[in-house]
Amino acid sequence: MSLPASATETASQNSLATVPTPDHILQTGFGFWACKTLLSAVEMEVFTELAKHPEDLEDLTGRLGLHPRSARDFLDALVAMGFLERQDGIYSNTPATDLYLDKKKPSYIGGILEMCNLRSYGHWNTLTEGLRTGLPQNELKGGGAPVFETIYADPARLKGFLKAMTGVSHGANLAIAAKFPWANYKTVVDAGPAQGDLLVQVALRNQHLLGIGFDLPEVGPIFEEYVEANGLASRLQFQPGSFFTHPLPRADVIMMGHILHDWNLEEKRRLIGKAYEALPEGGALLVYDAIIDDDRSKNAFGLMMSLQMLVETHGGFDYTGADCMEWMRDAGFREARVEHLTGPDSMVIGIK
Amino acid sequence: MSLPASATETASQNSLATVPTPDHILQTGFGFWACKTLLSAVEMEVFTELAKHPEDLEDLTGRLGLHPRSARDFLDALVAMGFLERQDGIYSNTPATDLYLDKKKPSYIGGILEMCNLRSYGHWNTLTEGLRTGLPQNELKGGGAPVFETIYADPARLKGFLKAMTGVSHGANLAIAAKFPWANYKTVVDAGPAQGDLLVQVALRNQHLLGIGFDLPEVGPIFEEYVEANGLASRLQFQPGSFFTHPLPRADVIMMGHILHDWNLEEKRRLIGKAYEALPEGGALLVYDAIIDDDRSKNAFGLMMSLQMLVETHGGFDYTGADCMEWMRDAGFREARVEHLTGPDSMVIGIK
Repeated sequence: MSLPASATETASQNSLATVPTPDHILQTGFGFWACKTLLSAVEMEVFTELAKHPEDLEDLTGRLGLHPRSARDFLDALVAMGFLERQDGIYSNTPATDLYLDKKKPSYIGGILEMCNLRSYGHWNTLTEGLRTGLPQNELKGGGAPVFETIYADPARLKGFLKAMTGVSHGANLAIAAKFPWANYKTVVDAGPAQGDLLVQVALRNQHLLGIGFDLPEVGPIFEEYVEANGLASRLQFQPGSFFTHPLPRADVIMMGHILHDWNLEEKRRLIGKAYEALPEGGALLVYDAIIDDDRSKNAFGLMMSLQMLVETHGGFDYTGADCMEWMRDAGFREARVEHLTGPDSMVIGIK
Repeated sequence: MSLPASATETASQNSLATVPTPDHILQTGFGFWACKTLLSAVEMEVFTELAKHPEDLEDLTGRLGLHPRSARDFLDALVAMGFLERQDGIYSNTPATDLYLDKKKPSYIGGILEMCNLRSYGHWNTLTEGLRTGLPQNELKGGGAPVFETIYADPARLKGFLKAMTGVSHGANLAIAAKFPWANYKTVVDAGPAQGDLLVQVALRNQHLLGIGFDLPEVGPIFEEYVEANGLASRLQFQPGSFFTHPLPRADVIMMGHILHDWNLEEKRRLIGKAYEALPEGGALLVYDAIIDDDRSKNAFGLMMSLQMLVETHGGFDYTGADCMEWMRDAGFREARVEHLTGPDSMVIGIK
């Protein structure tokens, strides 16, 4: 995106070649324009509609329920940002938006963007208040129920949330299925498995494994549907329970993906301790998150994920590999290591 | 910024090399994190504080009024995004943030970001509603006063707004001062001059010119202060008036910078017509905005600026060079041309 980079050329015209430009500042500061334009397009199912067939401005305006004042600017902004193509007045998806933002395709990753659009974008409007008070900026602010209770209380909403989690975790799940030394183990538990995609990918690639998804009972039907759709019902089962009030099921490997960052330090240590109890000697705890680099200067996504935990939870925060290895050692694990997965995600492995 | 690019590697691991990645989608969709982190830092004057001297985490937390839960993640996220540096635990500005985001420096461009933070970020939360209804999403939504009336009613707020306009226009103003054939003209009027930076830059570079800033009377003291600070009070004057209800002052050149896009088509044509009336034969109307490319497929910033007009005004919209040249010709101008200035800004020149 080109930007109001006026001062850039100011600098280069008037002064030394070493004068910095404001481009990165302005590009980031106006970033909500591009972000919200895309999020609204996902909300209005622009890409799902265009996946059926390309369309001209007039028909598309009608089918999407756009107002004539805004339709052309909106669609052309999506063209200029590279999310749509337009040839002779006919709009169509790009290969990427057709694959990832058509709701009817299994490769759809828009669930997480729908959540950003409906929840987080608005909650982040009062980020400054969160930074000053240390308090969440979502429903919790008005004394509402914790976010997970709200989500779990509505089956449709829960399924949407769990699908969104699959969308953002799938690449890391494939990496774990490939990288972890599964040949050394026979059984695996995923604590907080969402739809079960991590277990599914691990089981598809490692035919000898048996696995259990452990979560609140509401997750059961959603997990079982996904596992059956992947033909793994004979090897993967659901066991209902709460990882704070019940013991974890025993297994050679216990996994927690995008779970630990939701909780405060005491709760994180409690979960790691419960995993330790449920593992045999030589068993492994596999934790993964957008693990922050130990110098806390590179993984911007992980650091801002931690601000997301500030905005959405009472005590959650993201952490470095060094932090997590220390908690594991304190819990009794005899060794621990960090391995990068994909994008901002890494896994921390503790061996009992 | 690294991102949850899980599906990227999914694609490259599982399938053809031509499978697209979702990186651009996710980077844009999560763009509000980086945007709002920077906007909150500007709001909390992180860079103004650090311009005084570098500081460690504890002192900075206290001086900025940050909560200990959030301080370190917030500051380290700014480091990872390249807006702060950190050496041995001591945070400092980068050259760019020190120059452009220290409120005490004349090169400060944060005014426009303060406005994004306090107003537009929140208004864009209901962009979808604006796209469906064609109606503004700011104070106008609740039947409030038009945005300019609100801003002009409070002198401090008006000055902040006009300074912000200087920040985003300064580079284009320098380009106009250098590129336009000023030697052919003697007098110039800027209709809606904000602080007067365009006139100031034009007059500094073209010593023979006399100019008038024409705007509502509230702008007078702010304009005169800026002109005097630049030592141009003998050549640049303020004349109060409304460009819809009064004739424009006569001059060889009439300029409208970031003005025309605020208004609907009928109002745009009216303003162009009034400029025509105030010009002599051979006189020039100089309009500049984030002019959209004629194919409406490249200037994403200009297209989204038009959505910003949707969100903030009843009828405003941005336009292409071809649109503006047509309106000028319809108003009687005998020739018209477009010239690029800097970043997304271009000027359209009509000759009477």
